Amino acid sequence: MVDQVAPWHAPTAPDRWLESRVGATRALVCTYAAQRCDEHFTVADTGILRAVLTGFVGQGKFVRSTFAYLGWLCGRPESDAAARAAASLELLHAFALIQDDVMDDSATRRGSATVHVQLAHWAERQRRPVGAQFGRSAAVLLSDLCLVWAERMLRESGLPAESLAKALPVYDLLRSELAVGQFSDLLNENSAAPSLNAVLDIARRKSGNYTVLRPLELGAVAAGCSPQVLAALRQYGTAIGEAFQLRDDLLGVFGDPLVTGKPLGDDLYQAKATTIVVAAGELAGDTERRELRRLTAGRPLPGVIDERWIQAWQRLIVDTGADELVEKMIAERVEAAVTTLADEPGVPSAPRAALTVLADRCTQRTR
Amino acid sequence: MVDQVAPWHAPTAPDRWLESRVGATRALVCTYAAQRCDEHFTVADTGILRAVLTGFVGQGKFVRSTFAYLGWLCGRPESDAAARAAASLELLHAFALIQDDVMDDSATRRGSATVHVQLAHWAERQRRPVGAQFGRSAAVLLSDLCLVWAERMLRESGLPAESLAKALPVYDLLRSELAVGQFSDLLNENSAAPSLNAVLDIARRKSGNYTVLRPLELGAVAAGCSPQVLAALRQYGTAIGEAFQLRDDLLGVFGDPLVTGKPLGDDLYQAKATTIVVAAGELAGDTERRELRRLTAGRPLPGVIDERWIQAWQRLIVDTGADELVEKMIAERVEAAVTTLADEPGVPSAPRAALTVLADRCTQRTR
Repeated sequence: MVDQVAPWHAPTAPDRWLESRVGATRALVCTYAAQRCDEHFTVADTGILRAVLTGFVGQGKFVRSTFAYLGWLCGRPESDAAARAAASLELLHAFALIQDDVMDDSATRRGSATVHVQLAHWAERQRRPVGAQFGRSAAVLLSDLCLVWAERMLRESGLPAESLAKALPVYDLLRSELAVGQFSDLLNENSAAPSLNAVLDIARRKSGNYTVLRPLELGAVAAGCSPQVLAALRQYGTAIGEAFQLRDDLLGVFGDPLVTGKPLGDDLYQAKATTIVVAAGELAGDTERRELRRLTAGRPLPGVIDERWIQAWQRLIVDTGADELVEKMIAERVEAAVTTLADEPGVPSAPRAALTVLADRCTQRTR
Repeated sequence: MVDQVAPWHAPTAPDRWLESRVGATRALVCTYAAQRCDEHFTVADTGILRAVLTGFVGQGKFVRSTFAYLGWLCGRPESDAAARAAASLELLHAFALIQDDVMDDSATRRGSATVHVQLAHWAERQRRPVGAQFGRSAAVLLSDLCLVWAERMLRESGLPAESLAKALPVYDLLRSELAVGQFSDLLNENSAAPSLNAVLDIARRKSGNYTVLRPLELGAVAAGCSPQVLAALRQYGTAIGEAFQLRDDLLGVFGDPLVTGKPLGDDLYQAKATTIVVAAGELAGDTERRELRRLTAGRPLPGVIDERWIQAWQRLIVDTGADELVEKMIAERVEAAVTTLADEPGVPSAPRAALTVLADRCTQRTR
């Protein structure tokens, strides 16, 4: 049974509604994670896992759960069960972030030490005779638990069986695409000189689908939306997913570490072939191409922060016009997405208003 | 709907039946894994993931799936759906082994290079400019896919909805216990001088429950077994699970690498607090205690094979009588388990015969 909650008063105030959604989702995911910790962390030394995980899941922007819930609202009224199902995506996202930080060897996330670094520090403080890989291994195990518990949260959300049966194939697809996208990303080094289209394709599979398209689709198919509405939401999701990743790539070069919570020029240090870097390569004239080769060859050693090297990269990217190109690509995608929604009469006005606000918010953000 | 297959002719030949089960399970899991690879490995470079995974899942002893299917047969007739549900545990086991080898930094498994080593070699051969962690990261992603696909295989097995609803909580418990047990194992170093009981407790949670108790329970609750039968199977499962791990610990010291597929004295090199090592410590007299300290302090550097050091350990363990103690503990558990089954009239004779054979086979094995 879908339990109906108070009707939705958002059309006049989608911003306020979105804000209260985030608060509600945070409460749901924090409570669920704490319950699972209480259930399974009963043996020695697992207290640290509880402390790290409950601290971690309460943060973030809750983008994926919001898209999933808005997908649901395109076909059905508000529902506690659907809110829980949507919130489960944040526990899945915790899995993805914890593993991503291990694989990228990132020291900070959201301005704090990453999970594997926290766990390594704990073992040091406790003077436990563990191997050098302890923090990484323990973080991967904690991420496994998030993956298992996320699926359990979705299954136990209270969604009607027929809704769940429709949602699970999308959920399986989302999780498989995520892992395959991560694998492509491991192999995605700038020195391989991929094309902008190839990099956009990875971005779509790795991040765009996972962040926007699949969550939206999951909610919409669970709610039994019509093929017309589903098609419009998929167009919106693909466009905003790409724009989201394009913004992420811009922030990876120009973002303020104090706001993004990530180190300055993180993507540059990792020599990732991001859209902005590849666009700079494609737009570069002869002089700029020489400078690009010089900067690529002169990458600082891991752990060394070289602000002049970052600033030279930023100048080069501006000189080629790559930042303007990427901004233009973002704006085109946002406009196309918003127009698609406006043109499909089957999308109810309330979720449409919120999705229109989110289209901007996801792509004009500073963190 | 549970599809009924030909009636089971095993009582006269449980050995032959078990052998044909293993063959059938191997076919099910290999086919399912290949289908998922075809579905999801469609982009560049994923061919290597397919090659590694399909090579990996066809090996092994198929212990967990066999226990799960026997649990089912304690309540219901043979069924293709139950066979598929049971086989899904082998895909879950692939997840566990791939991650375990990454965390233990093991180079070989079943006599071949481990998954992360195969993936690292592939990147080298391809001269891909990947980081030093590539093999490990790619292996973790492949293990994630196994975890997701295993659950999907269980869900899509064709088990009736009510059977699946009963099985899933056991499945969730099994997966959470596995991760928590692995975490305890990361912290389980011999230098912390744990007691034999503490080590047995970790062994039960980490390996015994995962290998015997939970698979058996999963099959039995799915089949709707009576509380009496469930209780008997749980007693059997706990005892054989412990005996399984005790044998594993003996093989970790005395096993023939050509038969076990693992390096000689692997557990000793890792300074793991296994039951056999801890038993030796508890039984040691003054002379033996000095020798034990000498060997612990003289652990060879990682990667160095020192056969004399291993042989000295083996002698010490025999001198203390720890090997005899552990053999006795195994025999006691096998006897208790077999007696429990014989005393419960609700256990059908066919699965009882097979479980009796398996009790020996799991605990008297050489690999």
